[in-house]
Formats: sequence, C-alpha cells, structure tokens
Amino acid sequence: MAIVLGPHQYGKAETRLVRVIRDGDRHDLVDLNVSTALRGDFDAAHLDGDQRTVLPTDTQKNTAYVWARRLVPDPVESWALSLARHFVDDVEPVREARVEVERFAWSRAEVGGSPHGHTFVRSGPEVRTAAVTVGPDAVHVVQGLKDLVLLKTTGSAFRDFLVDELTTLQPTDDRIMATSLIVRWRLTDPPETDWNALAASVRAVLVARFAELHSLALQQTLWHMGRAVLEAHPAIAEIRLEAPNKHHFVVDFTPFDEPNPNEVFHADDRPYGLIHASAIRDDAAPAGDAWRSFTGLA
Amino acid sequence: MAIVLGPHQYGKAETRLVRVIRDGDRHDLVDLNVSTALRGDFDAAHLDGDQRTVLPTDTQKNTAYVWARRLVPDPVESWALSLARHFVDDVEPVREARVEVERFAWSRAEVGGSPHGHTFVRSGPEVRTAAVTVGPDAVHVVQGLKDLVLLKTTGSAFRDFLVDELTTLQPTDDRIMATSLIVRWRLTDPPETDWNALAASVRAVLVARFAELHSLALQQTLWHMGRAVLEAHPAIAEIRLEAPNKHHFVVDFTPFDEPNPNEVFHADDRPYGLIHASAIRDDAAPAGDAWRSFTGLA
Amino acid sequence: MAIVLGPHQYGKAETRLVRVIRDGDRHDLVDLNVSTALRGDFDAAHLDGDQRTVLPTDTQKNTAYVWARRLVPDPVESWALSLARHFVDDVEPVREARVEVERFAWSRAEVGGSPHGHTFVRSGPEVRTAAVTVGPDAVHVVQGLKDLVLLKTTGSAFRDFLVDELTTLQPTDDRIMATSLIVRWRLTDPPETDWNALAASVRAVLVARFAELHSLALQQTLWHMGRAVLEAHPAIAEIRLEAPNKHHFVVDFTPFDEPNPNEVFHADDRPYGLIHASAIRDDAAPAGDAWRSFTGLA
Amino acid sequence: MAIVLGPHQYGKAETRLVRVIRDGDRHDLVDLNVSTALRGDFDAAHLDGDQRTVLPTDTQKNTAYVWARRLVPDPVESWALSLARHFVDDVEPVREARVEVERFAWSRAEVGGSPHGHTFVRSGPEVRTAAVTVGPDAVHVVQGLKDLVLLKTTGSAFRDFLVDELTTLQPTDDRIMATSLIVRWRLTDPPETDWNALAASVRAVLVARFAELHSLALQQTLWHMGRAVLEAHPAIAEIRLEAPNKHHFVVDFTPFDEPNPNEVFHADDRPYGLIHASAIRDDAAPAGDAWRSFTGLA
Repeated sequence: MAIVLGPHQYGKAETRLVRVIRDGDRHDLVDLNVSTALRGDFDAAHLDGDQRTVLPTDTQKNTAYVWARRLVPDPVESWALSLARHFVDDVEPVREARVEVERFAWSRAEVGGSPHGHTFVRSGPEVRTAAVTVGPDAVHVVQGLKDLVLLKTTGSAFRDFLVDELTTLQPTDDRIMATSLIVRWRLTDPPETDWNALAASVRAVLVARFAELHSLALQQTLWHMGRAVLEAHPAIAEIRLEAPNKHHFVVDFTPFDEPNPNEVFHADDRPYGLIHASAIRDDAAPAGDAWRSFTGLA
Repeated sequence: MAIVLGPHQYGKAETRLVRVIRDGDRHDLVDLNVSTALRGDFDAAHLDGDQRTVLPTDTQKNTAYVWARRLVPDPVESWALSLARHFVDDVEPVREARVEVERFAWSRAEVGGSPHGHTFVRSGPEVRTAAVTVGPDAVHVVQGLKDLVLLKTTGSAFRDFLVDELTTLQPTDDRIMATSLIVRWRLTDPPETDWNALAASVRAVLVARFAELHSLALQQTLWHMGRAVLEAHPAIAEIRLEAPNKHHFVVDFTPFDEPNPNEVFHADDRPYGLIHASAIRDDAAPAGDAWRSFTGLA
Repeated sequence: MAIVLGPHQYGKAETRLVRVIRDGDRHDLVDLNVSTALRGDFDAAHLDGDQRTVLPTDTQKNTAYVWARRLVPDPVESWALSLARHFVDDVEPVREARVEVERFAWSRAEVGGSPHGHTFVRSGPEVRTAAVTVGPDAVHVVQGLKDLVLLKTTGSAFRDFLVDELTTLQPTDDRIMATSLIVRWRLTDPPETDWNALAASVRAVLVARFAELHSLALQQTLWHMGRAVLEAHPAIAEIRLEAPNKHHFVVDFTPFDEPNPNEVFHADDRPYGLIHASAIRDDAAPAGDAWRSFTGLA
Repeated sequence: MAIVLGPHQYGKAETRLVRVIRDGDRHDLVDLNVSTALRGDFDAAHLDGDQRTVLPTDTQKNTAYVWARRLVPDPVESWALSLARHFVDDVEPVREARVEVERFAWSRAEVGGSPHGHTFVRSGPEVRTAAVTVGPDAVHVVQGLKDLVLLKTTGSAFRDFLVDELTTLQPTDDRIMATSLIVRWRLTDPPETDWNALAASVRAVLVARFAELHSLALQQTLWHMGRAVLEAHPAIAEIRLEAPNKHHFVVDFTPFDEPNPNEVFHADDRPYGLIHASAIRDDAAPAGDAWRSFTGLA
C-alpha cells in the first residue's frame, strides 16, 4: 500500500480577453473569458518541485492573447481547437489540453434608428460556452449555453407523484415553469463546421420545445428538449441539461378576501428543485475527458 | 448635550414579485424586485420598543402583492406612486413613503419565427429602476437604468491631463471606452405621463450621445449625455450618472516581436476609475429625499 | 433657466493593496481595498473635455501604492488621512478628498499549537471600514464594520404592532433575531487617537448590547446599540446602523404530526426587513460630506 | 442507432436550515445549506411525464427539516448518512441518494469577557462541507473545506520552469503564495467515527504543511499537503485539492525612484492560475459516484 499522485492538471483560469476587428469604420468585437488547462507528465513538479516540464500559467495567458491576434476567435470553437492543439503539439510534456471559453453577447448600439459602427451594448444574461479537449485518443467539442432563463406562464402541470408521510405538496394542473438553463452538447472528433450556426440552431430547438411541449414535469421537458436536439443534429453525440426549478409560488390571497387567479406570484430564491437530465446516442463515441470541467468542484 | 434619535426608516426590501397578465391565449408578465420604506413617527419603537405605530414589514410585503393584483404594475412608476400614496394616506403614523422597484426585462420566445404566446426569455443585464417618494411637501419620481453596459472601440482619447511625480499613465488618442452605467433622473411633482415612453426616450438619447460624441474624457461624455437628456425632456429636473471606467488595456506584444495594433485587449476587473457626474436645471425644485436610497450604504 | 453641471467627483475605486511588514522572521500583513475620490474645480473636464486640472485615476492608484510604502497603513484611519491630505495639499485643483478603505481580517496560522511567523488564514466575513473626508471646512473620520453577522436564539419578541386589513403576521414572544450589520460612526475634526482600540471597543459595545437587551423590535435594539456607543465614546458625534432582518422562520410541523418547539428554522433569503436607525448628539458638528459615499448608488 | 436517456438525477438544492439546541439557558445552533439528490428508476418521468415514482423535491425539503428535528445534525456526516439511508431504504424507486451539506461557522459572542449563552457571531469565510452517497454497492463520505484562504508572505519560489517563445515570466526566489482552497477527502464504507475531530485534524495538517514546506511550486505544496493527510489518517482513501493561485504582484516602483523591497503588492483578481492535485492510496476502494457533484457543472 502506497500513497501516490492522483489526477492532476493545471492552467490559467479566466483570462478576460477582448478582440477588436476593424473593417474601415465598421468595427466588431469578441468578448471572451478563457481558461486553459494542461494534463501530462507533471509528476516531478508535484513530488519534487521540479518545474522543468511546467510551462507557466502566465505563459498560457500570453499564448491566449497572441492566439487571439493570429486567429480571430470567432467562432470560438475553431480558435479554442487551434489553441489546444498548439499546447499538445508544441509543448513536449503536454499530453492533453483543454480550453474553456465563455463568450459574452453584445449588440450594436442603435443611433437614430441605425446600428452604429463602433458602439455596442451588452446583451445577456445568456452566455455561449465552449470547451474543447484535445487528447491522444480523441478530440471533443462541447458547445453550450448557460444562464439561459426561460419561463412559461402556463402549459405546465405537476401531479400524480409519489406521496409519502412527509409529502405536503398539492398537485397542480397549471403553474409557472421557469429555469436558468445550463446546457451542453458533445461532438467527438468533429470536422470543422459552422459552429455559430450549429449553436444557434440548437438554441432555437431548445426554446421551441420548452415552449411547445405541455409539461408534466421538468424532467420530461428536459428530455424532450435534449432528444429534439439530437434528432435535429446527427453530429451531436450527447446533450446534458442542468435545470434549477425556479419556483414561482402563487401568493395565497385567502386572508385578504380577494381572488388571486394565478396572477400574482412570489419568485423564490432557495431552496430550488434541481434536475439533471441527458440524452445520448446508444452508439456514441466514448466521452473521455470531454465532461471533465476545468473550473468548479471537479 | 444629549444623545437623540437621528434619521431612521424601515421597510421590506426585495420582495420578488411576478405579475401575469392574461389576454386569452396571449400572456404577458411583469417581473419586479420591490422595496418599500416608511418614515414618520416611529420614535417610540426605537426608544421604548413600543410597536403600536409600526406596520410590520411583513404587511408591507403583503400590500405589495395585493397592489399588484389590484393594479397592473406597468408602468412601474404609476404603480409605485399608488402604493406609496396608500402608505401615506391610509397608515396614520406614516409621513413619507418610498417605493423602489427594479424591473427585469423579458422578451417573448421565438418559435418557428413567431413570438410565442406564453413563453419568455430573460433579457438583460440592463435593469429598469424606479424610486418614488411621496412626502408631505413633494412627490418625487426617479427613473433609472442600471447595468447598462456600453462600449465603444474607438472615438475616445485621454491626454493633456495633470501630471505629478507619481503619474506614469501615457496619453492616448484612441482607446476602448466602456462602462456599466447607473443613471437616474428626477421629476418632482410630475403629472402622470407615459413613463415607459419617457424611459425609452432617455435611454435612446444616452446611447446616442455615448456613441456619437468624440470623447476627451469620461467626465465629458457623461456631462453631454446628461445635458442631452435634460434638453430633450423639460420635465426632468436633474440627472445623475455613475460610471465605472471598465478599463480595457491593450496587451503589450513587444516581448513577442509581433504587432498588436489595438486589436487584443485585457478587460481588467479592479481597480477601476469611477466617475460621478450630474446635470441639473438651475431652477430645479428641491430634491428633498428623492435621492435618499433605501438600500445600500445610506 | 439653464442646464448646469451638478455634483460630481471622480477617483479610483477598489485598489486591492497588500502591505507586508517584516520584522526579522516574523511578518505581518495589512490587506486593503482602497477607493479614492477627488472633488474640486473639474468643470472644464466635463464641459469642454479639458483635462489640465485632472490628476488621472491611474495616478491615484499609484499614489495609494506609494503611500503604503511610505507609511504602514495600520491603523488605516491615520494612513487614509495622510493620503487624503496629500491630495488636498499637493494637487492644486482638489478642494476635498475622500479615501475609503476596507480592511480584511487575517489571523496567524497555528502550527503545532504556535502561531506561525509568516503564514496567515483569512478570517471574516466581518470587514473593518474607514472613510475619511478632508475638506476646506472640516475633517471627518467615519469608522465602521460591515458584514458583522449577529444572531440570538432567544430574547427577541415582536408583538402589539399596528394591524391593518392586510396584516397576517402573528405576534411572537420568542423568535430568532439575526442581522448582517452595517454600522458606521462619525468623528468630526478628531485628534489622532488609537483607532484600532476605538473600533474594537465600539464593536464590543455593539455585540454586548445586541446580546443583552431583551429585544421588543429590531428598531429598539439598534437604537440601544447606537446609544451605548455614544455613551461610551464622547468623541463620536453620530452613529448609523443599517440592519437587514435576516428572517428565520420556524418550520410548520403540524402536517407531520410532530412537534417543532422552536428548534428547526428556515433561513430565508428575500424579502427581508431592512431597518435604518441612528443616534446623534444634539450638539454634533455638521456632517458635511462625511456620509456621502464614494461607491454605491449615491 | 437510437437516442436514449443518459445519466440523470433530481433533488432539492440549498435548503437553508438552522437547528437550535437548547440546554437550559445555554443554546447552540447548527447552520446548514442542504442539497439532496436521488438516482434510480425515473425513466418514465422523463420519457412519458409519468410521476408515479417521483418523490417531489418539496418532500425532500420537508424531510430534511424533519430529520433535523429527529436527529441533531452534528456531526453533519452522521446526519447526512441517516437522511440518505432513509431515501434509499424507504422510498422504493430510489437506488442511490446523495446528500451534500455546507456548514457555516458561528462563534459565541463575547460579553464582558465571557461567552454568551444564546448570542452568536458568524465566522468564516471558511465553510465545512460534507457529501455522502449511499448506493447499492458502497457508501461514500467526502468531507471537505472550502473558501479556506491561506497566505504566506515568504517561503515560496518559482523558477527553472519550461520556457518557450511566449514566456515572459521572471523566476523568483521569494514571493507571496496565496490560495482559496477547496479540499475534499473520501472515505469509502467508513465506520461511524468522530467526524468533527477528523475534519479538525485534517485542517490542522493542511495548514501546517502549507506553512512549513518551502514551496517550489503550488503543485508541490498541494501534493505534500494531501500526502500528509493520508499519512495521518489511514481511513482516508483519497484527497483532492483545487487551488486558485491568488496572485499578489509586487508593485513596480522603479518609475517612482523609490525601493519596494517586497513590501507593497497588488492582489489581482483575474486571470489566476488554477491547480488541481490529488493524492490516493494505490489500493483505494473504487470511488463510484463519490465525486459526482450534485450542483455545479458536473
């Protein structure tokens, strides 16, 4: 029995990088939060403090900046793949590289009814995400969206659930359903594609299914959202959805001797239901490290 | 010399209230964060713990909910005025009432190219704010916007500033200028008006001036934004702008033997410049408690 | 009637500065968040974009760093006064300077039962604050504490309050009372004193009064906390307390046919009561700009 | 090729629960954030919206409250195990249950030099965590700490690292090293033990190793911290550390013609190095779902 070094990785997190593209008087910008992580033969750095195989995280930051000059990071997936391949191909000890990107949305300012050439207004809260993993066996691209907040004012029920002696919830045929969706979908060994068009299409499918399906449960809604994405896009192997149930409780007006016909709600903070669901092709290529996040409680 | 009770107020902060409006199959929603505060003869509550004049904050919460049923809170200003007047008129010890509202923006979900009847997507990060104060001498309405994030990729300089022995900043003729604006404008004893149209117009003026003015300093930009609003809207007595200078530093590429012609920037977090500016009519009615905030470090 | 420039100021916010003090093998550190603001004759910067009187915020940042080398920033009040006086005395256009400081707490790491010479563990969440204003007419020092979270499990009642037709709250003789206190106290034209001892004493008085007073309302508790501070410290002219009522609701166990004798509570997030109270000497010197905050919705 | 349901789970996140323990006039409290997740045969809920096997998340919340009455949740591990076993044993469709707990620290208020009987002050920012997983094959207990912020003012170097053409970092023999540690350690099929004593001992070992080891890299420090924990506690199978390198950059004083002998530092926000390291016994029992987090991007 011995104590050995377990899984490890290191990198630079949250490099806030803005790339401006100038086409005469008309400018554009790409606003990113970039995190890079390297995996490989870094045992000596841990065991002995020997840094000879360790490319500093400061250099990873520099590299992200330089890469954003050499290659416009739009779509972010192509750029992240190029950056990850650089680490694997050009830095000898690196066996696997992961690049995670958040892209913040901006819209062009309207001035006098026309879009302005070099002024922008931040939109959101929705954020586009991408995580690419370039390893010895496979390349994974995980596109995603986070903080996509959806709400429907009807078309959602919850009833006929399991009841035990501590259950007090009343069934309902009509409730507000709302969530702040985190959704990610995996493509393994994908060819280059129009990543922005793909993400836009997936988003449209997700929103449409959320809107149109008469929901009997958030689980059902998530599954049908995920399945519809896989049906629409054969290149996607798997999709994962994480959905807090942002409870909107109808306020009890009985003490006030007034009706409240599902009109006034309290938007509660905590606790919240939290549903994880996923859809996968039964012949999907293995996920490898595709889902192994760089930040957060891994 | 004696120790006496100084300024005081109490209320219910951050009641998260959603009001649904149903017109057949087409629904709409108003999503609010409501804070109420009462000022008046509450000395005994402090000095002796005597609560006989104190309407509980829990009741203030109930009242906000009931008011949202009785009156659709759109525009929020009319609703907040009605709620504040109720406290002053119907609750005997209350001398002055303040209602602060944040309104979160939602857009209708697109399904198959058409807006959906009851499904919504949160937009933002921009938030509409309103703070009304109903007192014995005057009524104040302070409309506002917060988290309005603006950025221009050119048309901003900073040079010919005061230099002392600790100044190291280099002048520049071309930089990114970005801010996350908090802006509020005051109307005292206003008649009812189309509050949503007014706010939309002010926003358009602010964005246009930010875009069009060739900026020699953020101070100058803010002043001209504020002045333009007062010029466009005679009913507005005063406007205050608080603008963090969200620094975007051009990354120094000289160590890499590559050019960086204002293309790659680091979006820094802290520290940041912070500019407060305001424009006011020289015959403006006194502000009274209009600017005395309910939340935050008073 | 004309549109004129209203109140304005500018500065550098949130310079995160750590000062290390070395005494042989024994080190100490001071961990600060520093914000500076200047007021004075900056009209031309707004009206015309003329920066000749404007010391850059970047220089203010540099100055904070250099000042932390020249003078150990402990106590922070003495250091902030020195820094503010420099701006007023040495930068010609500056009429008034404000320096706000947050000081984060660290405790020495314990190793083998002994405090370590150069390793520290962050304590908190409580933060010490200081805001000094050096102006033409007066000098103000506002010491404070924020995020001081206090809770008592008994000794708090709320009853005999005003009841209207929307009141549903039940009176109680025994509840949890909890708050995350923001408290600040003002000294005008103070002599140098032992600021750290003063702050420690005020904190002790506040905590003791919170603990010992049988509370009939949070208003009453705050008043008595404030009054006790002024009684203990004649140099303090005024004290302001801002206290969210962090509601702990006893969970209703009646559906479960089990008792819950004030043992299990739900700690709610929003909404929350919010109480502002203050105590002041009736002969206190005028507050001037002492309370005019640099950051936040002012 | 078919599209099938992938990994899924559901539960109630962030139930904020406070349990008061009364022993005459001396009270104590346990302040928790509880998240529960259930895994099992919930396919029909997804595929068909059939809720007959689904215990509502609302019931999970109720159960947490009731369990905190039946069993004092201190140590949290014993309580979480009991709660998880209830879900697996008493709710038929549940195959595996996970309970995650954050415990917030409070210290007894000092009044007149003595600890008070029923008044408490929140300490922190450090939070104790526990995650238990009760499944068909094994029981896992993962204890942990998060937001444990450590800093040493010397005894840390970084040099002799890999250099490529984009490396600009200078080697250093003396720097500030600081991190906000997230650390978790796993025990599989553990007997009941004194969980609080175990966690306290692990914390002491971690802090001591951080302080005493002359660091050649954060990787090395983390490995030695982890190894020391496994050496001290044979029951622990594995330990994982996630450590942001909270950079403290020495401020360059050369423009000011003054020295800065490692005394004044800028505490930077982003980007930051992020190091994940772990130590494991080579005969450790399999981890199963022990590390599969309930919240966060899993």
